[in-house]
Amino acid sequence: MPNRNPTMFTGLSAFPLTPLRHDELDEPAFIGLVERLVAAGVDSITALGSTGSYAYLDRDERARVARSAVAHAGDVPVFVGIGATRTSQVLAHAEAAQEAGAAALLLAPVSYQPLTEDDVFELFRTVTSHSSVPVIAYDNPGTTRFTFTTELYARIAALEGIASIKIPGVPSDPEAARAHVQQIRAALPPGVTIGVSGDAHAAEGLLAGCDAWYSVIAGTLPEAALRIVRTVRQGSPDQARAESQRLAPLWELFARHGGSIRVMAAVAEELGLAQESSLPLPLLGLTEDQRAEVARVIRGLDVEQ
Amino acid sequence: MPNRNPTMFTGLSAFPLTPLRHDELDEPAFIGLVERLVAAGVDSITALGSTGSYAYLDRDERARVARSAVAHAGDVPVFVGIGATRTSQVLAHAEAAQEAGAAALLLAPVSYQPLTEDDVFELFRTVTSHSSVPVIAYDNPGTTRFTFTTELYARIAALEGIASIKIPGVPSDPEAARAHVQQIRAALPPGVTIGVSGDAHAAEGLLAGCDAWYSVIAGTLPEAALRIVRTVRQGSPDQARAESQRLAPLWELFARHGGSIRVMAAVAEELGLAQESSLPLPLLGLTEDQRAEVARVIRGLDVEQ
Repeated sequence: MPNRNPTMFTGLSAFPLTPLRHDELDEPAFIGLVERLVAAGVDSITALGSTGSYAYLDRDERARVARSAVAHAGDVPVFVGIGATRTSQVLAHAEAAQEAGAAALLLAPVSYQPLTEDDVFELFRTVTSHSSVPVIAYDNPGTTRFTFTTELYARIAALEGIASIKIPGVPSDPEAARAHVQQIRAALPPGVTIGVSGDAHAAEGLLAGCDAWYSVIAGTLPEAALRIVRTVRQGSPDQARAESQRLAPLWELFARHGGSIRVMAAVAEELGLAQESSLPLPLLGLTEDQRAEVARVIRGLDVEQ
Repeated sequence: MPNRNPTMFTGLSAFPLTPLRHDELDEPAFIGLVERLVAAGVDSITALGSTGSYAYLDRDERARVARSAVAHAGDVPVFVGIGATRTSQVLAHAEAAQEAGAAALLLAPVSYQPLTEDDVFELFRTVTSHSSVPVIAYDNPGTTRFTFTTELYARIAALEGIASIKIPGVPSDPEAARAHVQQIRAALPPGVTIGVSGDAHAAEGLLAGCDAWYSVIAGTLPEAALRIVRTVRQGSPDQARAESQRLAPLWELFARHGGSIRVMAAVAEELGLAQESSLPLPLLGLTEDQRAEVARVIRGLDVEQ
């Protein structure tokens, strides 16, 4: 059984894209992203998250991405997404990720047929009992369409080997956010961290007591995300909120384009970090007009080039 | 470009399960199901539909299932599901299905990241332009969580190579069902058929003018489904509704278990057509109590043993 090492599952975890080029892995672009995250000083890197297109890549591609991430992450721990529709496929991805040197595994209950709570619990039980590194339980209803209850968080977090819960966005009201996080915290064993996602409300999530931010924007724009994390750590909530508010044009683009991935791919392409059309089809990139707007927003935000 | 052959896309298309045994294809059980459908006289067989667990099977398994279906279907045309999250994977499945002898391809816009209308249109455009057999556009919001508009049906149906649209359940009110089907019909080119799914309201769908029934229950209980189709063909709407009403305990089980697949797997296992635990994990089969209820329902319905 893996030891829980709570400090590894705190702070900023950056989720890089996995850029494609002509439907093949663009490994140089991926390595460039990983090196950028290491240089910026993120606390961990999560390869093959939703932003990293894990659900579109086959077994060999996923193994290559995992190896590449570990090889270029230096001392930064690398977590690797292992989700798949079938439990035996999840186990195969988990084994490949561990062979590649993953420090932890990220698992969402990917579904085609809607899953029951018992299906999901058994999935996590099976995977944790077969893995020698910790597992992060990944609650992403926007892509999996599975909704965790707090009771299910509690059942899963009680499994030996579960290190962290990645929760969706918290309420934007600070008090509601705090109550939400406290209610989840009360259901988890000590040592299992709570990581917020939903970048637009991540500052509020950290201020509400989340231990980590599993961050889409940090995968491409790590400095912008680190400014939020640092001001929270310095005990400056107003400044943290101001740093998040500064990125409002980006949050608006996410909302308008049905999520973050198309926008972040356009940002990476605009900054020369990926080639055009870097997303797996059928996901079309943004149109030319939409890209021009992304470029304007990025210039206006004065984020790193 | 494939010729549209509308008569092939009418009547009863039966969707067999793809039973597993210890996480491997149970090919003898699958062949038994196919032979049962041929013997019953269904109009077509759709292998690797949602009921056939296509979203859980890898490329080799899917190719084996397609070959096996064609080899045992005699003169009955076999349609093969080719959905996958990535367009290039869909094209690979399409090629394998055609090599196996599929008479048509069934394609749902499987998603992880939510898809746009343009993503979905381009997916169908790409697949139809690469295929030499017709394609059935598969609208299954319960599993793909993508919702087609009538306008999108029209755009896709206008593509050369689209033969049929598989629509979700129609309204249970006969007049509303008729209006619904007529509104879709008006948007489609002549020769593109409309097939209803959502077994509980399939009788109403056929009476409302659908050309085909893409049927889950027909994959395991073909006679029960054929009785509905025959009475509709005989112009006996009351009898068709009575035949459907007779199966109400089954429709209730579908509703209670969040869909049809877990119930139909239990039915097949109960009838000795598949081994226990025939679904791909993480989908747990029904519990012992639930199975006992399924067995009672099946006995009460006096469907074929």
